[in-house]
Amino acid sequence: MEKNNKILNSRLNQNKNYIERELKRILSDIAAPKVLKEVMFYAVLNGGKRIRPFIISEVSSLYKVKFSVFKYPAMAIEMAHCFSLIYDDLPCMDDDDLRRGKPSVHVKFGEANALLGGASLLTYAYNILASSKFSIENKNKINLINNLSNAIGHKGMLAGQFLDLEAENPNKKPTIRKFNNIQEKKTGLLIAFCCYAGGYIGNATKKELEALYEFGLILGRIFQITDDILDKEGTQELLGKKVNKDEEQNKATLIKIKSLDFAKSELEKFTLKAKRKLLLIDKNTEVLSVLIDFLCSRSS
Amino acid sequence: MEKNNKILNSRLNQNKNYIERELKRILSDIAAPKVLKEVMFYAVLNGGKRIRPFIISEVSSLYKVKFSVFKYPAMAIEMAHCFSLIYDDLPCMDDDDLRRGKPSVHVKFGEANALLGGASLLTYAYNILASSKFSIENKNKINLINNLSNAIGHKGMLAGQFLDLEAENPNKKPTIRKFNNIQEKKTGLLIAFCCYAGGYIGNATKKELEALYEFGLILGRIFQITDDILDKEGTQELLGKKVNKDEEQNKATLIKIKSLDFAKSELEKFTLKAKRKLLLIDKNTEVLSVLIDFLCSRSS
Repeated sequence: MEKNNKILNSRLNQNKNYIERELKRILSDIAAPKVLKEVMFYAVLNGGKRIRPFIISEVSSLYKVKFSVFKYPAMAIEMAHCFSLIYDDLPCMDDDDLRRGKPSVHVKFGEANALLGGASLLTYAYNILASSKFSIENKNKINLINNLSNAIGHKGMLAGQFLDLEAENPNKKPTIRKFNNIQEKKTGLLIAFCCYAGGYIGNATKKELEALYEFGLILGRIFQITDDILDKEGTQELLGKKVNKDEEQNKATLIKIKSLDFAKSELEKFTLKAKRKLLLIDKNTEVLSVLIDFLCSRSS
Repeated sequence: MEKNNKILNSRLNQNKNYIERELKRILSDIAAPKVLKEVMFYAVLNGGKRIRPFIISEVSSLYKVKFSVFKYPAMAIEMAHCFSLIYDDLPCMDDDDLRRGKPSVHVKFGEANALLGGASLLTYAYNILASSKFSIENKNKINLINNLSNAIGHKGMLAGQFLDLEAENPNKKPTIRKFNNIQEKKTGLLIAFCCYAGGYIGNATKKELEALYEFGLILGRIFQITDDILDKEGTQELLGKKVNKDEEQNKATLIKIKSLDFAKSELEKFTLKAKRKLLLIDKNTEVLSVLIDFLCSRSS
């Protein structure tokens, strides 16, 4: 497993370099006012792990899709993700001063600039998917645009953040069912979209697309549970943000609703479930299987 | 002119009814969490004049485009516009407690909900343009999506709001040139997109599309100058918001940089300019000409 993690780490870093070069290039070209552009740069080129672009990359690669093609949905999703990080950190949301060891966007640039920069990134994600340089058929671009909106909007990530804030009640634990619904919307749908998009631009079969989407949902769950465990067991140094923050904010987490042991057993359960999904895909999916273990064992 | 205004008022109201029925229908169907859906309803069905959908309607009608087609860009733009109103009113932006005589969205629902509802509306605008029910070719949908993003994003409306806040300096008046650039981005580009979109889905010629776009930019200018004059000369009762707000906030307005008389003479100049643009369109554009006078003489 350690050897696998090493290989995966090297692939992850390679992909991170590639995608960051593209993000830098595309952001350098935009005609935004000086400081607004700085906000966008700061929010995107912030040392992120680029897990989402990596997932698209790995799924696309199963279908022999080239970087010059999958980089478009990868960048669009990363922009949308960075938009969500800006918003999550705002005082009226999770009120985080630090993000990956650096001042959050609103701390560095002020709230108004954070909001305008965030919305600019979200808007730009659509420019990227609608770009004439993204060489897939127009009807397929429309499909991706629709699905990105669904993953982000009022029934996606934004709904998840809304429900998460609504559930912040020190006197009332949400039910497991409600909690899972929040997590799926907040994290799962965008990761599921990454898996789907990778297969979709690779002309995966309908059955495979369904399996990829569900695999993504489970991956999202794994990601979230690991996050919760790290918030409990991690260190500020490794995480680049305060630990035990969930507790302070009365955030519903699996650990709080059940227990740390329960969270760990769920993680095991979802790991097996994710690996079973991969059997439905008629490709060599070993790298995705390694990705699951990698996500479970991450320390930041 | 009074008779013309009467006719235009009646058309405006008719179109407002049609488009609001559609907005209500489409928002009723969304699967958002209860309160998030309420935020979106409150922000959109807020008694707006629906000038932007009306502009699309009038331009589309020159080209015999049916309501069942132009309602899609009309709704998308109105969603994007309502998103911008939520953001403009926030404490960190223009800090307005009232919007059309009612509490602003953040006052009614709190800041977090205002932000999430606003971003949901923006995201939904793309779902509407990408909808399979919108019966234009996919390549044309892609074009509209790209142009909407340009009108809203880091070089459009969001850039305008950014520059407007940046220019809020009591000790430094912006130059006329800088001021015009802010206004064009903040208001002009979205109105220009309305004019363009109406012609585009009606298969207008390239020359006409250019003229429509420029006509829209001038219309935006007229709209903004009238707004500034109303802020100076209007009443809270008619406007549904505080007057003399620009002054209090050290907002750059044409009146402040130059004078009320100058603003009025600019309004006249732009009126003539807009009417001249209409001569480049090989259709009966009288209703657009009446629209210009109507916008100049509005009292709210």
